[in-house]
Amino acid sequence: MNLSENIIITKFLQKLNFKMSETYNFKNDGAYIKIPKNNKLIVTNDSIFESVDFFKNDPPESIAIKIVTINLSDLSAMGCKPYAYTLSLGLPKNISVNWLNRFTKKLYFLQKKYNFFLIGGDLSNTNRISISSNFFGKLKVKNKILLRSGSKLNDDIWLTGNLGESAIGLKIKQKKITLNPLYKKYYINKYLYPKHCFLGDKISQYASSAIDISDGFYGDLNKLIEDNHKGASIKSNFIPYSQKTNKLIKNKKISVNYLLSSGDDYELLFTSNVKNSMIIKKLANKNNIKITKVGKIIQKKGIYIDEKKVNIINKSFQHFF
Amino acid sequence: MNLSENIIITKFLQKLNFKMSETYNFKNDGAYIKIPKNNKLIVTNDSIFESVDFFKNDPPESIAIKIVTINLSDLSAMGCKPYAYTLSLGLPKNISVNWLNRFTKKLYFLQKKYNFFLIGGDLSNTNRISISSNFFGKLKVKNKILLRSGSKLNDDIWLTGNLGESAIGLKIKQKKITLNPLYKKYYINKYLYPKHCFLGDKISQYASSAIDISDGFYGDLNKLIEDNHKGASIKSNFIPYSQKTNKLIKNKKISVNYLLSSGDDYELLFTSNVKNSMIIKKLANKNNIKITKVGKIIQKKGIYIDEKKVNIINKSFQHFF
Repeated sequence: MNLSENIIITKFLQKLNFKMSETYNFKNDGAYIKIPKNNKLIVTNDSIFESVDFFKNDPPESIAIKIVTINLSDLSAMGCKPYAYTLSLGLPKNISVNWLNRFTKKLYFLQKKYNFFLIGGDLSNTNRISISSNFFGKLKVKNKILLRSGSKLNDDIWLTGNLGESAIGLKIKQKKITLNPLYKKYYINKYLYPKHCFLGDKISQYASSAIDISDGFYGDLNKLIEDNHKGASIKSNFIPYSQKTNKLIKNKKISVNYLLSSGDDYELLFTSNVKNSMIIKKLANKNNIKITKVGKIIQKKGIYIDEKKVNIINKSFQHFF
Repeated sequence: MNLSENIIITKFLQKLNFKMSETYNFKNDGAYIKIPKNNKLIVTNDSIFESVDFFKNDPPESIAIKIVTINLSDLSAMGCKPYAYTLSLGLPKNISVNWLNRFTKKLYFLQKKYNFFLIGGDLSNTNRISISSNFFGKLKVKNKILLRSGSKLNDDIWLTGNLGESAIGLKIKQKKITLNPLYKKYYINKYLYPKHCFLGDKISQYASSAIDISDGFYGDLNKLIEDNHKGASIKSNFIPYSQKTNKLIKNKKISVNYLLSSGDDYELLFTSNVKNSMIIKKLANKNNIKITKVGKIIQKKGIYIDEKKVNIINKSFQHFF
C-alpha cells in the first residue's frame, strides 16, 4: 500500500473532522474558525517528538493520548472547554497502516469523549515521528479567562489528583528503579496513558489563578507565584499521593523531592479565595475528581514546605526546554 | 550561555508578540484570539523540517522566510490578510545565540512588513530543527473566503509571477545541474528566500477559485479542477518564465516538464470570469505583480496543454507527502 498524502488524509484523517463544514473536508489550505456565538476563543500549542516525549515503540494509542492530553490540560488550566484542533504530523516513510489506524482511532475516541474535532493540519515525511498541535478552546463571553497571575494574599492553593504517577512510570521505563509487576504495570500505564484534569472550566469563576502540572509541582507553582510577586506556603503532609506511591516513599524507593520536581502529571494547581472552598469541593465531587487544599498564598516570596524555604537550583522549569 | 527555555522566550521570542495584550506576554499556556470586529478568522498549518524542507547549513534567515512564506501563501490563496501565528520550535541543544538572533530578526522584519504578530507557541529540544506554525488570517465578514472549488465553465485561468525559479535553485543545490555563477546565485536565492504572492485578498472578490503553487503547476491546477469536476486547457507559450529560465529551456538545460511539476513557487493560480479581466490586471499592476492569463476552464476533465492531455502519472501531489 502506497501511503500517499492523499490516502493518509482520506482513509485516516478525514473522519476526524466530524463533517464540520468549516474544515472544507480538508480540501483547502486552511479552515474557517466559526467560533460559537457568545464565546471567546483561546489557542494553545504543544508538540511531542519521538525519543524526547515518547519512545519509538510506545503504542500509537499512547502517542495520540499524549498530544491530546497536554493540549487539553492547557485549555483546562485557562478555564476553557475544547473546541477544535490542528495536527501537524511528521511521519517516517515506513509508517504502517496498523500504526495509522490505531493512532487515529484513539484520536476519534478522545474527540467523541471531550467533544472537539480536527479542523486542519499538515503532513510531512520525517525520520522520526513528530507531532505538533494547536488546540482551540472556547468559553462564554461573560466568563473570565483563567490566568497564571491573579492569586491574592491568603488564597488557598488547591491540587487535583495524585502527584508523581507519570514520573515513576518514566523512571521504570528508563530502568532506574525496579518494582514488582503489579506496581510496574500501574505506573507505566500512568506514564503511557495520561489524563488531563477537565475541572478547569467548571471552577474557573471561583479560582483566582491556575496552571497545569506539566513541568512538576515546584516548577509550576513557582510560575503562579513568580507572576504575582508573592510566595506559597505548602504543608507537606497534605500533598496527595496514591496509596502505592505512599508505600514507595515509605520504603525509600522514591524521593519526595523527585515527585515534586517531575512533570507530566496534568493535574491542576490553582488558587482561590477561602470563601469558595465549599463550592470547589462540591464541583470536584460532582465530577468525581480528587481535590486537596495543599497550602496558602503568603506575602514572603518563594516556596516554603512546612515553613522551610525550598532551594530551587534544580527547579524543573530551568532545564533546557 | 545556558539557553534555557526562559532565556529563549525572554531574549528572542518575546519581542515578536508586538506587545499585544492577548498574548499575555507568553506567560500563560494559551493566548486569547481577539479577532478584529466584523472579521472572519481562518487558520492554516504548515511545518518545515531540517533535511526535508531545508538543509542543515541554510542561513537562519532562509528558514524564517520559508516558514512564513508557505503559511502566508496559503492565507493569500484563501483571500485573507495575515493576523497572527503560533510557532512550535524544535531546536537542538547546541543551537547558537547567533542562529536564534538571525532567525528571530528575520521573523520580526517579516511581521512588520506584512503586519502580523506571534501569539504563542512551544519549545522542544530535538536533534534536528523542526518548525511548525499555525497562521491566522482575517477577512471582512462581508467578503467571501476564496476556495479551491468554485471555478465555472469558461473561467480564465490566471497565474502570478514566473514559474520554476525555486525548483531550479533546488536542482543546483542538489548538484544535478551546473550553471554559471550569476545564474547559480540568482536561482539559489530564489530557493532560499521565497516570497509569497500577497495578491490573494485583493482579487478575492473577483476570483472564483484559487490555490498557491506549493506542489507544482500540474499538481495544484489538478486540485482546482478535481474539486470542480471540470478540466483546464492551457496554452504552453503563455506560461510565464523569467528571461533566465527561458534561456535555460532554450539551451535544454532544464525541461519544461520539470518546471511544471516542481513546487515551492508560492505563486497564485486562480480562476475568474472573463468580465473581471480588466480589474484583475489593474489590481496586479497597482501592486507591481506580474500576472498572466494561461488558459481556460473547460468541460472535459483533465489538464490539456495545447490541446494535448497531460499524463499525470508522476503528478507531484501523488508523492509521499
